[in-house]
Amino acid sequence: MEDNNGSLALGCQFVRPTLLYTPYSINLYCFAEENKMENFIFRNPTTIVFGKGSVAKLPELLSPSKKILMTYGRGSIKRNGVYEQVMEALKGKKVIEFGGIQPNPRYETLMEAVQLAKEEKADFLLAVGGGSVLDGTKFIAAAILFEEGDPWRILSEQAEVKRAIPLGCVLTLPATGSESNGFAVISRESTKEKLAFYSEHVYPRFSILDPTTTFSLPKRQVANGIVDAFTHVMEQYATYPVGAALQDRQAEAILTTLIEVGPKTLENPTDYVARANLVWCATQALNGLIGCGVPQDWTTHMIGHELTALYGIDHGQSLAVVLPATLRHQITKKQKKLAQYGRRVWGLSSEDERQLAEQAIDKTEEFFRSLGVKTKLSEYGIPEDAADAVANRLKKRDVKLGEHKLITDQEVREILKLCL
Amino acid sequence: MEDNNGSLALGCQFVRPTLLYTPYSINLYCFAEENKMENFIFRNPTTIVFGKGSVAKLPELLSPSKKILMTYGRGSIKRNGVYEQVMEALKGKKVIEFGGIQPNPRYETLMEAVQLAKEEKADFLLAVGGGSVLDGTKFIAAAILFEEGDPWRILSEQAEVKRAIPLGCVLTLPATGSESNGFAVISRESTKEKLAFYSEHVYPRFSILDPTTTFSLPKRQVANGIVDAFTHVMEQYATYPVGAALQDRQAEAILTTLIEVGPKTLENPTDYVARANLVWCATQALNGLIGCGVPQDWTTHMIGHELTALYGIDHGQSLAVVLPATLRHQITKKQKKLAQYGRRVWGLSSEDERQLAEQAIDKTEEFFRSLGVKTKLSEYGIPEDAADAVANRLKKRDVKLGEHKLITDQEVREILKLCL
Repeated sequence: MEDNNGSLALGCQFVRPTLLYTPYSINLYCFAEENKMENFIFRNPTTIVFGKGSVAKLPELLSPSKKILMTYGRGSIKRNGVYEQVMEALKGKKVIEFGGIQPNPRYETLMEAVQLAKEEKADFLLAVGGGSVLDGTKFIAAAILFEEGDPWRILSEQAEVKRAIPLGCVLTLPATGSESNGFAVISRESTKEKLAFYSEHVYPRFSILDPTTTFSLPKRQVANGIVDAFTHVMEQYATYPVGAALQDRQAEAILTTLIEVGPKTLENPTDYVARANLVWCATQALNGLIGCGVPQDWTTHMIGHELTALYGIDHGQSLAVVLPATLRHQITKKQKKLAQYGRRVWGLSSEDERQLAEQAIDKTEEFFRSLGVKTKLSEYGIPEDAADAVANRLKKRDVKLGEHKLITDQEVREILKLCL
Repeated sequence: MEDNNGSLALGCQFVRPTLLYTPYSINLYCFAEENKMENFIFRNPTTIVFGKGSVAKLPELLSPSKKILMTYGRGSIKRNGVYEQVMEALKGKKVIEFGGIQPNPRYETLMEAVQLAKEEKADFLLAVGGGSVLDGTKFIAAAILFEEGDPWRILSEQAEVKRAIPLGCVLTLPATGSESNGFAVISRESTKEKLAFYSEHVYPRFSILDPTTTFSLPKRQVANGIVDAFTHVMEQYATYPVGAALQDRQAEAILTTLIEVGPKTLENPTDYVARANLVWCATQALNGLIGCGVPQDWTTHMIGHELTALYGIDHGQSLAVVLPATLRHQITKKQKKLAQYGRRVWGLSSEDERQLAEQAIDKTEEFFRSLGVKTKLSEYGIPEDAADAVANRLKKRDVKLGEHKLITDQEVREILKLCL
């Protein structure tokens, strides 16, 4: 993509991925002119198998001679019946298991799975669980075949992932969009780091999305998932206009649907249609489509990751806190798009663009709170010095934030002060 | 998909394509309950390379050792500079050419290309042109490796396409969506037939979409393309509600954008952003996404194909005539969705659902006319007996129409009478 300064759209898969060695490095050099839609490459090879009873399709999706390493979390799939469904579908296949992958999956744990997979010569990985299990499994898939030193380098130095063991997924939590992209976020307990990588080799070959497998999730996880998906859309949408009329409306379609079905699915978890819409929204929010040709601002996720790494706050909670603060701090740069968001998504009608933008941010924060997700750091018991701690860590790693990558560490501090 | 009565979403690619042997057979057995989103499988493997100057990326997209058969139409690519761009990008590759593919590509011509490709042992097909060139090339790709008799059987009997030569595309006309799906529509001069087939093997490996290559198109072709894309969306949207809130809004996003950019791009063909939005809308209209899990009604395309086969009317013109008539005739079954369409896409606000639906259809017809596309058969000089002729042909082929596949040949006659 040298001819347009390496600007690339998030989640898209690239013919030449050599420019992707920074988490969310996408659009690292994006200086798109206003009203000038950027060039892009879009490819998403994942097969989505969607609907009630889809787990039974597993045998059709797997080639016959695999030795499968099945990965999962801390046992919820054994309580909600998904484990039995998967095992029933895998009858007659060689399957080994690795359970215990944590939320914010830990490098230390994942390396045990890498060891097991190598010893057992597993040639396919099947992740059964939520985004954390799947992200962890993507890392395992890349680490097994990584020959250039410590696999941690994939995260810390964005070392190139040249190949990976193929993987598939049975998703039980709508949130991260990991089921249809090449991203993974991994944490390291010993250094309290939470880092992301991208590779075209870790897109799931297939993802089975059966909304009924998510019915038994705790409300807190569902609410966090709604916030995560909503924030993914906002980070690809709330920047400045480049004339990408269709991508804007596709983003607004997801936001509007999340606002409609979010409260419904929390109130009635077994409402199939409401939950199915949430699941499909979460997938569409980060499969690359709405990011095609538009500037992006991943400030909220980057600050949120640091808050989770340092203080253990849930991922969704961190986003509910940071997104409104980021939008308020950056309102001048984002005013036009936020006003559009206010008009189209929230039905606001002020004549004054600034007022529309302000009201739209308030609506966003109210929406998160209405889902039961608090939006201030103080409500999570996180101390005021978090502002300095996070700003310093991002500065040390030289992480560039904002759609123009021009947000200073002082501004990160200011954003975090708005979070208190 | 036996567990849900073979209901499949258009344009989606299937793990087991054995149920697809009828054009638009998708949802052949769809008896989805109202407000019950259907299960679906979605896979779209095409890499989209989008933007000004993208033709230069051809060498990165082709593997090094190919002998390429480049296919094109009747010479417009030699007048607008695309031919030179492609040849420049292919320097150093073995390339043979086959030009002269017609609009409504003809079996007789395509079989000459099959012969040439076999003699020359071409192992990659590169279609350079619009949907007709690409559809023709998909048929060539399948016919070269077809071993079960006359390749016409792929169309006439929906004989299974078990394999195909890989193909890519440089698209110069936004309309059919062929650049990102497995469909092709082929005509046979000798029998005046126009038939479709689908195969997962004929998805383009890549499609290069450079909006600037479409600047020189005649207004009539651009207008026809807008109508084609708009109709593709309506055929996946204007049925009955199944609670697919996101798919509905994704469809409405395309419709709204087409209404916004259609007139702009006709008035100012070199407005990059307007044309880029049209190009991207046309791709998204028939890449399978908005068809996921929803009932579909391809009546307009099926009747339109017959009108083109019998009377030579442009494809887009045939749709502009048949879509409003089909919607009017089927208004009772489609009333709820048409009212939603009226409210959300056209900003109508009547309290009366039937009135909303009627006004929305009127708006649709006015939109087509505003693009300069006439909407009555009489305006194209097509005689009244077309109603019988088309109805008889569809009955003879036992083509099932409507989202419930229950439209009788008498009703086809009635629809066509509304077209006069």
